[in-house]
Amino acid sequence: METFSDGVFAIAATLLVLEIGIDESSRDVGRDLLDLWPSYLAYATTFMTIGIIWINHHHTVSLMVRVDRTFLFVNNLLLMVIAFLPFPTRIVAQHLNDDGARAATLAYAATLVVTAVIHQVYWQYARRGRRLIAPGVPDSALRGVDLAYLPGVPMYGAVLVVAFFSPLTAIFLTFAIAAFYLPSAALFER
Amino acid sequence: METFSDGVFAIAATLLVLEIGIDESSRDVGRDLLDLWPSYLAYATTFMTIGIIWINHHHTVSLMVRVDRTFLFVNNLLLMVIAFLPFPTRIVAQHLNDDGARAATLAYAATLVVTAVIHQVYWQYARRGRRLIAPGVPDSALRGVDLAYLPGVPMYGAVLVVAFFSPLTAIFLTFAIAAFYLPSAALFER
Amino acid sequence: METFSDGVFAIAATLLVLEIGIDESSRDVGRDLLDLWPSYLAYATTFMTIGIIWINHHHTVSLMVRVDRTFLFVNNLLLMVIAFLPFPTRIVAQHLNDDGARAATLAYAATLVVTAVIHQVYWQYARRGRRLIAPGVPDSALRGVDLAYLPGVPMYGAVLVVAFFSPLTAIFLTFAIAAFYLPSAALFER
Amino acid sequence: METFSDGVFAIAATLLVLEIGIDESSRDVGRDLLDLWPSYLAYATTFMTIGIIWINHHHTVSLMVRVDRTFLFVNNLLLMVIAFLPFPTRIVAQHLNDDGARAATLAYAATLVVTAVIHQVYWQYARRGRRLIAPGVPDSALRGVDLAYLPGVPMYGAVLVVAFFSPLTAIFLTFAIAAFYLPSAALFER
Repeated sequence: METFSDGVFAIAATLLVLEIGIDESSRDVGRDLLDLWPSYLAYATTFMTIGIIWINHHHTVSLMVRVDRTFLFVNNLLLMVIAFLPFPTRIVAQHLNDDGARAATLAYAATLVVTAVIHQVYWQYARRGRRLIAPGVPDSALRGVDLAYLPGVPMYGAVLVVAFFSPLTAIFLTFAIAAFYLPSAALFER
Repeated sequence: METFSDGVFAIAATLLVLEIGIDESSRDVGRDLLDLWPSYLAYATTFMTIGIIWINHHHTVSLMVRVDRTFLFVNNLLLMVIAFLPFPTRIVAQHLNDDGARAATLAYAATLVVTAVIHQVYWQYARRGRRLIAPGVPDSALRGVDLAYLPGVPMYGAVLVVAFFSPLTAIFLTFAIAAFYLPSAALFER
Repeated sequence: METFSDGVFAIAATLLVLEIGIDESSRDVGRDLLDLWPSYLAYATTFMTIGIIWINHHHTVSLMVRVDRTFLFVNNLLLMVIAFLPFPTRIVAQHLNDDGARAATLAYAATLVVTAVIHQVYWQYARRGRRLIAPGVPDSALRGVDLAYLPGVPMYGAVLVVAFFSPLTAIFLTFAIAAFYLPSAALFER
Repeated sequence: METFSDGVFAIAATLLVLEIGIDESSRDVGRDLLDLWPSYLAYATTFMTIGIIWINHHHTVSLMVRVDRTFLFVNNLLLMVIAFLPFPTRIVAQHLNDDGARAATLAYAATLVVTAVIHQVYWQYARRGRRLIAPGVPDSALRGVDLAYLPGVPMYGAVLVVAFFSPLTAIFLTFAIAAFYLPSAALFER
């Protein structure tokens, strides 16, 4: 399961760059490159967000001793939304500067909310009654993951609300969440 | 063999997202995103279908003790049709809403039938007379895989027939097959 | 070295499908799908060719006990031409049916000749005086690889010559070479 | 961490080929293929540069005994710029022959400078006071890496300066750096 999952994470993150581009017939390459800043911002935000989810996924799998059919189904749903992220990222990159900014950012934030919900279901299913958890793992380790997963849905829910009023603020907020959580998620991996 | 195979499965699944997109000059991003529902449906259907085949592939390889040249040839054919799936998926995504729906869905279903046939040949070649099977594997495990592989060709054959009359029904049927078989295929992996 | 190499092989093979496509505004999807046969032929030919090279690469690496800087440089050159193959494949797919067929097929065959030459250099460098070969490997194993590598350059050289006169024959010849060599290359892996 | 990192390196290198292409409606395929030389040059230069960074990354990770949150954050930044390289590579490929050459080459060189800076921070963070280094690693091995990393920032800084005056020279210089350093970076891996 891990090879396939790791592959999907790495490929989804690396495919993001394909969404960035300028017109081949561009007359002012320098200016067009600067005008692409929404693409760069969307790229960095999603890349770091995938990085966080990957680190969390890796850590939780290391706590498990077995999987069952429901869990594998949920894991596949999780990979399906991760692999989908390059699409709303491109929509944001293309429309953060125009009339479509609100719709684009709402689609982006909604995808992140769905991702956070599935990731929470993924963890709670494995953790409830220690269903899939290895015997040697202390309860404190489970509570540590609980705390790390707790803010996911409300945070991205807040991004969704902000997106209604200010698309740009919503993207910066997502960026800040990723920049803040990336090193703390990384802590698990020590 | 497994590294290469796993890589092809993960990459084919993740490349599917590249087939989804709206016109960069879109005037109504929100509406265009909703109109893309055939793309989302095709994406989810193929992603889950690749997930099933991957789990089955992984399980059968774990039962084998050796491979031979014919088997590697068949395995390569299987990877070739798996890696091909993003193409008919995109055709369905682009044309499920227009006059091309029948041709697109027939091409999609035909690819799945070919995949199921090659996957069946792949398994029967390894299993007949326990040609490639490890000595310790009980016959009951082989019969379990037989049962799991049995419905593949007739099911996707039925999808092909349905595609003549109702493309949309055919796609929903493929989706239902994947959603139903994904957790049961996952059972092997325990 | 193997992780990186395996990744490049699997990704290059799977990216080939991105080169196949019909116009989104197609009026006759069924006919357009049939007219794409040069794409299907080019896809299958290159996919199987990459499969052969991967199997050979894997086998030769398994015979080595160490690598040196020159070898790694050559290995990187080999990966660079493998990762390049999707490009001439697409050119053939686009132009096998029009006036550009000869130029496209020559570019394709030339890339295969370069690949075969680099692959031969890769093997001869490792093998000469058993420079990188593990002590336990018998000379007969080395001669087996010699024989397998011998026809590469002349065969693809012949394809290059045929491409001048009949592009379509050249592609079918490449396909036949791959279909013939894939199972015999696979023999190494037993 | 290594699976994800290796995946990103291999995928970024292999995606480069997607940036090369001729117009499907090309009337003179042979000539158009020759006119693509900036694409081939940019492809080879970036492919080899990613190869060098990958070998260095692999070697330094092998010297470490643990990672911490700051290091993982920096590693993620490094992967983010590596995965970004296909974009400036395409800009160079598209505009090395026209008025946009200077802007394109400056963007390319600037990305390489940022990559070299982050790679230096990555190494210095791990190495200072042997923060993450395994106990058995001799100081001489660390000084060897120091020497290998030293020229990175000034070299790519020089490329940036040259890009102001002659874009083509800057690209050839980057190519020469890669061709020269690839085998010496490879030395670590023995």
